[in-house]
Amino acid sequence: MIVVMNHAANDEQIYKVVERLKREGYNIHLSQGVERTIIGAVGENKGSGCIAVEAMEGVERVIPILRPYKLAGKDYKPEKTIIRVNNLEIGSEKIQVMAGPCAVENRDQLIETAKIVKKAGATILRGGAFKPRTSPYSFQGLEEEGLKILAEAREITGMPIVTEVMDTKSVELVAEYADILQIGARNMQNFILLKEVANTCKPILLKRGPSSTVEEWILAAEYIMAGGNDKVILCERGIRTFETATRNTLDLSSVPLLKSLTHLPVIVDPSHGTGKWSLVTPMSKAAVACGADGLIIEVHPYPDEALSDGPQSLTGDNFQKLMVETFAVAKAVGRTLGA
Amino acid sequence: MIVVMNHAANDEQIYKVVERLKREGYNIHLSQGVERTIIGAVGENKGSGCIAVEAMEGVERVIPILRPYKLAGKDYKPEKTIIRVNNLEIGSEKIQVMAGPCAVENRDQLIETAKIVKKAGATILRGGAFKPRTSPYSFQGLEEEGLKILAEAREITGMPIVTEVMDTKSVELVAEYADILQIGARNMQNFILLKEVANTCKPILLKRGPSSTVEEWILAAEYIMAGGNDKVILCERGIRTFETATRNTLDLSSVPLLKSLTHLPVIVDPSHGTGKWSLVTPMSKAAVACGADGLIIEVHPYPDEALSDGPQSLTGDNFQKLMVETFAVAKAVGRTLGA
Amino acid sequence: MIVVMNHAANDEQIYKVVERLKREGYNIHLSQGVERTIIGAVGENKGSGCIAVEAMEGVERVIPILRPYKLAGKDYKPEKTIIRVNNLEIGSEKIQVMAGPCAVENRDQLIETAKIVKKAGATILRGGAFKPRTSPYSFQGLEEEGLKILAEAREITGMPIVTEVMDTKSVELVAEYADILQIGARNMQNFILLKEVANTCKPILLKRGPSSTVEEWILAAEYIMAGGNDKVILCERGIRTFETATRNTLDLSSVPLLKSLTHLPVIVDPSHGTGKWSLVTPMSKAAVACGADGLIIEVHPYPDEALSDGPQSLTGDNFQKLMVETFAVAKAVGRTLGA
Amino acid sequence: MIVVMNHAANDEQIYKVVERLKREGYNIHLSQGVERTIIGAVGENKGSGCIAVEAMEGVERVIPILRPYKLAGKDYKPEKTIIRVNNLEIGSEKIQVMAGPCAVENRDQLIETAKIVKKAGATILRGGAFKPRTSPYSFQGLEEEGLKILAEAREITGMPIVTEVMDTKSVELVAEYADILQIGARNMQNFILLKEVANTCKPILLKRGPSSTVEEWILAAEYIMAGGNDKVILCERGIRTFETATRNTLDLSSVPLLKSLTHLPVIVDPSHGTGKWSLVTPMSKAAVACGADGLIIEVHPYPDEALSDGPQSLTGDNFQKLMVETFAVAKAVGRTLGA
Repeated sequence: MIVVMNHAANDEQIYKVVERLKREGYNIHLSQGVERTIIGAVGENKGSGCIAVEAMEGVERVIPILRPYKLAGKDYKPEKTIIRVNNLEIGSEKIQVMAGPCAVENRDQLIETAKIVKKAGATILRGGAFKPRTSPYSFQGLEEEGLKILAEAREITGMPIVTEVMDTKSVELVAEYADILQIGARNMQNFILLKEVANTCKPILLKRGPSSTVEEWILAAEYIMAGGNDKVILCERGIRTFETATRNTLDLSSVPLLKSLTHLPVIVDPSHGTGKWSLVTPMSKAAVACGADGLIIEVHPYPDEALSDGPQSLTGDNFQKLMVETFAVAKAVGRTLGA
Repeated sequence: MIVVMNHAANDEQIYKVVERLKREGYNIHLSQGVERTIIGAVGENKGSGCIAVEAMEGVERVIPILRPYKLAGKDYKPEKTIIRVNNLEIGSEKIQVMAGPCAVENRDQLIETAKIVKKAGATILRGGAFKPRTSPYSFQGLEEEGLKILAEAREITGMPIVTEVMDTKSVELVAEYADILQIGARNMQNFILLKEVANTCKPILLKRGPSSTVEEWILAAEYIMAGGNDKVILCERGIRTFETATRNTLDLSSVPLLKSLTHLPVIVDPSHGTGKWSLVTPMSKAAVACGADGLIIEVHPYPDEALSDGPQSLTGDNFQKLMVETFAVAKAVGRTLGA
Repeated sequence: MIVVMNHAANDEQIYKVVERLKREGYNIHLSQGVERTIIGAVGENKGSGCIAVEAMEGVERVIPILRPYKLAGKDYKPEKTIIRVNNLEIGSEKIQVMAGPCAVENRDQLIETAKIVKKAGATILRGGAFKPRTSPYSFQGLEEEGLKILAEAREITGMPIVTEVMDTKSVELVAEYADILQIGARNMQNFILLKEVANTCKPILLKRGPSSTVEEWILAAEYIMAGGNDKVILCERGIRTFETATRNTLDLSSVPLLKSLTHLPVIVDPSHGTGKWSLVTPMSKAAVACGADGLIIEVHPYPDEALSDGPQSLTGDNFQKLMVETFAVAKAVGRTLGA
Repeated sequence: MIVVMNHAANDEQIYKVVERLKREGYNIHLSQGVERTIIGAVGENKGSGCIAVEAMEGVERVIPILRPYKLAGKDYKPEKTIIRVNNLEIGSEKIQVMAGPCAVENRDQLIETAKIVKKAGATILRGGAFKPRTSPYSFQGLEEEGLKILAEAREITGMPIVTEVMDTKSVELVAEYADILQIGARNMQNFILLKEVANTCKPILLKRGPSSTVEEWILAAEYIMAGGNDKVILCERGIRTFETATRNTLDLSSVPLLKSLTHLPVIVDPSHGTGKWSLVTPMSKAAVACGADGLIIEVHPYPDEALSDGPQSLTGDNFQKLMVETFAVAKAVGRTLGA
């Protein structure tokens, strides 16, 4: 850690900061420039792990040097993590496409969609049984009934299923049915939920929070990994910015950035990232072009009748077009789509 | 709802949208301009409550007209809601100041802080027993032990306590001890938690999410109110923007804006809003000047030893100064501080 | 335009708004719902063009229906605009790559860079002679001397040049040398400059402002087009968000979105968009995959000696790698790179 | 400057960075930790002033230590700057209120408004003759005609005038008429304009750019001061965020923050900051409560007929109410309103 003292800091203030840091077990490098005194604190904190040097008199700012995560970082594990779900690999040269409706609405809707996306080349089925909705008056999901329908669709199509878990109380239930547990964007920093899903042995699809930095997102993955589960899939789904022409601002640069910081697989959700079905196919191609390990796409046979997210859902035909076009881009970057 | 058809929409597409809206029980006003056809849908949706007209062919955009919340709105209840906690009023002409440490660290720290803030004029004691922390390696709170210490401090000082509840599993436990349950910023859209705290009869302090609009925040309050608990206190604590010189951007305009939209009390947290103790007093005065019904302030006897949020914590002396200065501003706007 | 009256608006207030709109030449559609009265104003404003209905009593909000731009929109001109610079096409199936240093530093640096990028396949040379710099103490560009060096590089390599014009006073001078005039991001809403460059017959590369919506950006193009110059190239270069891990947040979704709203060519600047050279190649591929008509890339033979933007500049070798990889993606989406 | 080498940086890479920094005249402090090597570069850069160490191999990041501005900083000049305009002081204990219409529309409108605001206690008259408008089809201002009307209003009321200058070509003209030159938000980083207004001896009201950090804003002031004009008044007018319920997000925390970083006066524009007239009075009181040296307020006798910014303009009556209420808050913080 680097502590920058302010212009007017006096010797006593500097001395107190140095002593404080020494007490915490740091080795000190003092550098007294003309305008500022800089205190370098090297070594590991062997004390309380938690000192608020910034609150000490004379301190202008404190700059951490080490990245705050360990297990998720490339320093710790340079080789890529490949997560296996049944016979599928997530994080290898193969790009997996997860597809399905936003919400499981009824048996017919889900089974029909599952067959459509399977036929077009999707390898994993998505569908929400528990739905986080901004308004209490919106459809909140079929809950366990929805999980059962998902399980049936898996039996029929052979595709593993990914579905969201919203609360610690239902982790056990959802884990019984799902092959991959999804942590939604709004729950990225629901730390108790992160600890709880770490206790399952399931792969976790961790969506980026709408106002989360890449570093905070990796720290959320670190919560799961520190809990003993290293099967974390990061999912870029857009951040909230001033631009309202799209539902979110899909931050595709996070994909190659994450690849340089962490060993975990990264997938992209262009459906939530844009909120407009007509932008989903171009952004899927872009995601694959910049290195995404997978896509998660909302598909609904009749988007205008969808109980949620209709405007961003693809029809079966449009999804098939997406797969054909994305396949070509995947090939151009030396990868393959699917199983 | 207003449906704007695109420039090239044909008669069949318009007809289909109209028919669809009629089926949902709307009365239709059709307005065919030179450049666009506009379809007004009036009346209440008596159908599924959930149609994705935006996904229909030929539709450019859909503009909702009615505000999406009811119980929390001034249309529904024009007079101000005043929430009583023991003998205190929140939302009346009296401004309540909640103060205390970010986290309960140990008995001595909390009791000492409680006495300090009480003496300076605070009326409610704050302190976290369950702490949401960005890193899994940071201090996570004393949990039930912390709640017990809070209860003891209440006994000693007579101040009611406000403390955060992070998860559905601990709602019952926290509600046993706390006078006001706090929903933290990161949990503002943890909808299952919102439903659960609605079931307690406790007042809920609902912090604004860092990337939540005022409308989404009111909808989160609506979740609690729709669950039968109308004792919701809104707490502005800053939003996330590109500016990093402060920890968050304290959006004080939300205070008078909320007063025009809702009947609920609004308080301000300048500690998290700025992240710098030296800005807390000026922003407390500003909050009161623009109409806040209360403040929630982090105070620590030794900020540089705080296990969390030291840089934004006031010492006892600084907190007393805050109270004196804010008292003058409260008087200038025709209000009083405290009990 | 749709005027939504508030819940409590009375008949007189409604009447006044209606009369006001009629006076401006609108036809009125009145729709009185249970909760709100809605006033639709149809037709063209034949009055002052500027009424502040929102400021009238009883008005809750005013919703414009028509897009505020005309010449730049697809309603006005559905077919794509192709801009010709010498024998090059911008906006056709051919993707143009503009490359060169951030700033022209001296003759040797520019000529060397020009040869490098030409050899790798770039078709247009970029380089700044007038440099907008955040600090007054940073290198501000060689000004006319820089323009002369650019002209010499054009002569040697045959590549047309694009360079920034920062001020109305130097429009004539820059237009004498440049083949394409660049309006920098910070000048996107420098409306007098926009009007001035409209008077040249040169193509204008219009960068998106860091806090500009897509709509404001198209309106900036409209300024140039309303001034008689329809050769506008839009350039996405990232917007400012809370994420600081990248210099800006490259909003690639704007590319297909713009393609649906306007007929103008759209190119992407991944150098400023990310601020990190290691992200430039993946984001170039993503840009092409989602439909960009071109790229503008910073290249410097010795990035660590660059007088500006070194960290985001590619070496010659890295640029060549970019061209090879991007070529493959262009082919996969049915397009070609370059002349 | 602190250079953090990455985990895998080898001795040669470290050596090269050290040599490079030495060549630029820095003294080097090397600190080799277990996980990272840190290079401290102390002293002033005596070389090119511009090295891109971040682009060197093995470098993870570069952290500047010194603030990038000098003249505007409190290190350079600890005592507050008081700017005199006629007999008025800006930056002293007296709070100045600038008021008037957004745009000068005609003689009657301006003179009437000037009298109204003067009577209510405003001390400086605002009004735009050159108007930056998002759309080319909006009213663009009366230009010199508007300046003449402003001058007449000054003669009648005795109030000095503040008005915007948009372009270098009109600096001389505007300076002939205005007492204070305003640089609009969109021009905060129009560096050539900043240099040009520095050459007048007039006080400059420098609005914050909608996506500018406080540091960039101070650097814009530094441009003017480095040009020889130290009469800079900073004006907070809101930043652009995801929240659209207000026109901008008024960042009032910037007021006390600026007071700690710079010696320049700081005023607040709650009209643009909120975009809603009903929020202007509460936010004016908040601005004064947290330390603003002045306000700039839009007033129009008939807001619904305003050619621009009607929805955020106060009527004369509302402005008078603002003055009375703000006066009370000013007194509560130990200051006075006006002359």
